[in-house]
Amino acid sequence: MPPHLAPVDLPKSYRLLNHGPTVLVSSSHAGEENVMAAAWACALDYTPAKLTVVIDKATRTRALVENSGVFGIQVPTASILKQTHQVGQVSLANAPDKLREAGVNLFRFEGCDVPMVEGCAAWLACRLIPEPHNQQAYDLFIGEITAAWADTRVFRDGHWHFETAPQELRSLHYIAGGRFYAIGEALDAVG
Amino acid sequence: MPPHLAPVDLPKSYRLLNHGPTVLVSSSHAGEENVMAAAWACALDYTPAKLTVVIDKATRTRALVENSGVFGIQVPTASILKQTHQVGQVSLANAPDKLREAGVNLFRFEGCDVPMVEGCAAWLACRLIPEPHNQQAYDLFIGEITAAWADTRVFRDGHWHFETAPQELRSLHYIAGGRFYAIGEALDAVG
Repeated sequence: MPPHLAPVDLPKSYRLLNHGPTVLVSSSHAGEENVMAAAWACALDYTPAKLTVVIDKATRTRALVENSGVFGIQVPTASILKQTHQVGQVSLANAPDKLREAGVNLFRFEGCDVPMVEGCAAWLACRLIPEPHNQQAYDLFIGEITAAWADTRVFRDGHWHFETAPQELRSLHYIAGGRFYAIGEALDAVG
Repeated sequence: MPPHLAPVDLPKSYRLLNHGPTVLVSSSHAGEENVMAAAWACALDYTPAKLTVVIDKATRTRALVENSGVFGIQVPTASILKQTHQVGQVSLANAPDKLREAGVNLFRFEGCDVPMVEGCAAWLACRLIPEPHNQQAYDLFIGEITAAWADTRVFRDGHWHFETAPQELRSLHYIAGGRFYAIGEALDAVG
């Protein structure tokens, strides 16, 4: 279990995703565990807290999510840049040892059976809200956020504190071709 | 019309949103024009290029989008930080002069009737793909991207170039309470 953890109130859990980070999608079913990267994840609602994530038919994650009905969404940091990219490039279907080769370390929160990834800044446990048309036509999955946690060095009191945290805790924002951007400086529109 | 404009190939238009910026949603119908800010917008597909955006029932934008069947999604920059926040806080329903008061300047691309906002780094013209269940149950709208343009000072050759562009062209990533983050430094996972 990583240090510096605290639960996040569900009505404020959208803030973990509001700035549009690339996420890791974790899942497990029948003893099989997987993690993929996804740039196409987004908050959807405050209460009950919900999110969307696009999971392609070619991914192994898709079967694990559909079969287990649960998944984890987490916000990887600059400290696991290479791992984040690698789990987005390689499929468990072709590389059964994918997670070990990528150097991804899993853990579980007490009372939550979804595997989670070390080196992230925030973790959201989700229950799949089945929407067969969206899943089939658009690869679009909707999850209800059932629990959330964050690294208190960088998210506390309902707000991100990237500007005072170590650089290695910055969230990652993927473009293409291995190029990410870290989140940058704080800008206040009022005051 | 802003300077430094170039069209973006539709299969690469997802890259304009891939790093999760807060966007502006522009719309018009029967002579009424509006712009709102939205943090909950996300790429959905490559070809045909699609995106999702959450548009609450309380917004005036929702009626304009549903009635016209088209809308614009654009990536505002640090140069219009205050305008971006203000159009996210004030509704046209209560403030008919909202756009003028916020200092938002609209223009139109040739051959495209959707109003677009000056001071952005990228603009996507969208056609609503009606999905009544998603719209009613989740406030979730799906658009097909029918044309895209970018400011070549910061996006060209299919890639963002924030790291070599003026700071005022950084994209904005909203959290809450008037606090945004600008996109930050480039990180390459390979090489």
